[in-house]
Amino acid sequence: MLFKDITYIDENFNTVEHAYIGTKNGVIDYISTEKPDWGYGEVYDGAGKVLIPGFVNNHCHAAMGLMRGYGEGLPLQRWLDEKIFPFESKWDENSIYWAGLLGMAEMIACGTTSFSDMYFFDAVAEKVVRESGIKCNFDNPPICFDGTPLKKQKYFPPVDEMVKKFGHSKGRFLEEFGLHAEYTSTEPLVKEVAAYAKENGVRLHIHMDETKLEHENCKKNRGMTTAKYFESCGIFENNVNLAHCVWVEDEDIATLAKYPNVSVTHCPSSNMKLGSGFAPIRKMLDAGINVCLGTDGASSNNNLNIFEEMHLAAMICRGNTGDADNVSPKELFKMATVNGAKSQGRFDTGVIKKGNKADLVVLDFNKPHLVPCYDVLTNIVFSAQSSDVVLTMVDGDVLYRDGKYKTIDINKVYDKISYYLPKILEQL
Amino acid sequence: MLFKDITYIDENFNTVEHAYIGTKNGVIDYISTEKPDWGYGEVYDGAGKVLIPGFVNNHCHAAMGLMRGYGEGLPLQRWLDEKIFPFESKWDENSIYWAGLLGMAEMIACGTTSFSDMYFFDAVAEKVVRESGIKCNFDNPPICFDGTPLKKQKYFPPVDEMVKKFGHSKGRFLEEFGLHAEYTSTEPLVKEVAAYAKENGVRLHIHMDETKLEHENCKKNRGMTTAKYFESCGIFENNVNLAHCVWVEDEDIATLAKYPNVSVTHCPSSNMKLGSGFAPIRKMLDAGINVCLGTDGASSNNNLNIFEEMHLAAMICRGNTGDADNVSPKELFKMATVNGAKSQGRFDTGVIKKGNKADLVVLDFNKPHLVPCYDVLTNIVFSAQSSDVVLTMVDGDVLYRDGKYKTIDINKVYDKISYYLPKILEQL
Repeated sequence: MLFKDITYIDENFNTVEHAYIGTKNGVIDYISTEKPDWGYGEVYDGAGKVLIPGFVNNHCHAAMGLMRGYGEGLPLQRWLDEKIFPFESKWDENSIYWAGLLGMAEMIACGTTSFSDMYFFDAVAEKVVRESGIKCNFDNPPICFDGTPLKKQKYFPPVDEMVKKFGHSKGRFLEEFGLHAEYTSTEPLVKEVAAYAKENGVRLHIHMDETKLEHENCKKNRGMTTAKYFESCGIFENNVNLAHCVWVEDEDIATLAKYPNVSVTHCPSSNMKLGSGFAPIRKMLDAGINVCLGTDGASSNNNLNIFEEMHLAAMICRGNTGDADNVSPKELFKMATVNGAKSQGRFDTGVIKKGNKADLVVLDFNKPHLVPCYDVLTNIVFSAQSSDVVLTMVDGDVLYRDGKYKTIDINKVYDKISYYLPKILEQL
Repeated sequence: MLFKDITYIDENFNTVEHAYIGTKNGVIDYISTEKPDWGYGEVYDGAGKVLIPGFVNNHCHAAMGLMRGYGEGLPLQRWLDEKIFPFESKWDENSIYWAGLLGMAEMIACGTTSFSDMYFFDAVAEKVVRESGIKCNFDNPPICFDGTPLKKQKYFPPVDEMVKKFGHSKGRFLEEFGLHAEYTSTEPLVKEVAAYAKENGVRLHIHMDETKLEHENCKKNRGMTTAKYFESCGIFENNVNLAHCVWVEDEDIATLAKYPNVSVTHCPSSNMKLGSGFAPIRKMLDAGINVCLGTDGASSNNNLNIFEEMHLAAMICRGNTGDADNVSPKELFKMATVNGAKSQGRFDTGVIKKGNKADLVVLDFNKPHLVPCYDVLTNIVFSAQSSDVVLTMVDGDVLYRDGKYKTIDINKVYDKISYYLPKILEQL
């Protein structure tokens, strides 16, 4: 495809107008303000449109969309114990497949081209990702309340098999290894996970310091902060995606900053909705930490919309510090794109440059809420809506265009969910 | 029009499915789960749709949309002094007309059927409101840094004329009287404004306690809080819309609660974006104050989207208190609808009930981010997007449907703004 006369965000996050951008064999093949001398198949008229790299939703539990709004109004622990955990015990391969496809549909329509997911049913996740065309780093975390060693854990054999198969994938689906959290794991398990990741050269995805209680209990029980504890267990010797990090202390930030392969994924909607608090984003950025954005599950968000996360991250940082210039549109946009790609180990995407994968999103700027436009990134971060996405492309394949999915039969998804959801609920 | 087989939010904010709702002569004429025996013109198929009362954006400066994103990143005072005030000095009747229409287009597409606006050029505002079909309470605030008495103020004669003409309007345009803020007015002016409003029986619209500096300076300079000061000047003996109220103290909340005709308009996006802080919404609701929602101008928001304000209000209340159940979807939805209507003195709208004005909005719930739906209000507050609005009706007239405006030529608006905006900028 050749995007003609389009405005785009270049690899330095500057805005370039009236550009020609060609994609071929899944990669960005041509970038110039001059028309190419050769053809590119379809010519896409970019007048009034803006081309951006696809968003990376770096912390998600996509299938939890089936619990969107379920148990609203309950405090966190009752919500988990009375609603979420009982529901999750009833998943089967059918219900989780359709719930997964619903999540893919939602993310693709919002301009997300890649996401990092922590959940169960790895093989189903791989199928959903393969069929929908999106990219995903997936992990199924061992949870070890009772001290069961890693290799005796219920899910270890199938996950280990997926790690062997997809742990070093260069394709759209990449299997990671997960650790749910400090408070759900024993110290021997954390050490086993760190060693397993190192031995297999796979990436890790962990919830850390989401709530104050979690952070304070770790200090009380282990005599050190969660970050220090994970460091002592060898976790940070791997490529690690740490979700939340709301309650990290200044010294923890210094600790994390020592490890260039450790990323933090900020989940502002979830953190605010559950009353968890405000992560110290400015401090983490200043320390040089790679900060990304995530939606968390739609059960605690209640959608999978990275536009909302960019916007909310900006609002929190400014509102909470009283500093109206606390984070810049460029920093927020990088958190939503290239920082996530880096955290996923996908160094061939996240910015628009020649040779990178054609993971691209077109925004329609002919909307009242985007007029006038003094600065494109400012309008994207503060004014744009997910519905301004008119095209989502992954590896050069158009997955979504003008409200229509190319890979997902959305009405079938709705029908199947209407069929399977009552079957789960009637068991509760 | 007859909405057939539609889900709607009733006057008690409960959800009713499979209803028939008929509108005739601008009012809601029929509500039942039974089909009416008589005809209503067009039948609108409501399957998969939700009918809600239109939103009331109760604090806005609509024309400031022309400064959307202008001066991004500057701290508040420099932003005002270097960007906003110089720009505003260059307004003329043409530029403000088209900027106003842009604001109407944006609000109508987001499901707003009425708004309260504080700005200049009252007669142009009346024209824009009349032509677009929306409802508006408008005021032009006297600003008196220099002690000029009210009736000698530059804008007094034309505004007084508008008050005489539209101050008691039962129609779509209602002229109010405004006071910019405590810190821009002398005490004699505040007293004159209070007396003028009382004498003419018109409503008042005032910025109050937006920033900590404003609140603290008032205490220092006048020996009392802003609320106490306004009370002492007789302001609260009128119907008053107080925008912001971020820094009200507990005693101020008790003061405001004594006056049933005083409403507070919460503007979460603007308050967070400018680093002003978090208004104590829970405390105000508990005191029985009529709390509404507003976007403020798009220059400090940066759009005019009440969905974002409902969502952000929920997020702030929960994130800031650590209480995951701090405000309910029903409370938030009321803030966005009937509470605003009450503040505007429009007691014939804001809820769907027979005899009320047909100020209605249809949402398309056939969207991935709205599936499944355990509770309609929860999905509206936490998951819905402004783009889910597929129809906006005011007084029974359809103003917007499936992305098309009935009263506004949006491409002409874009063209005219492209023409007039550079003329303003080149003078700066």
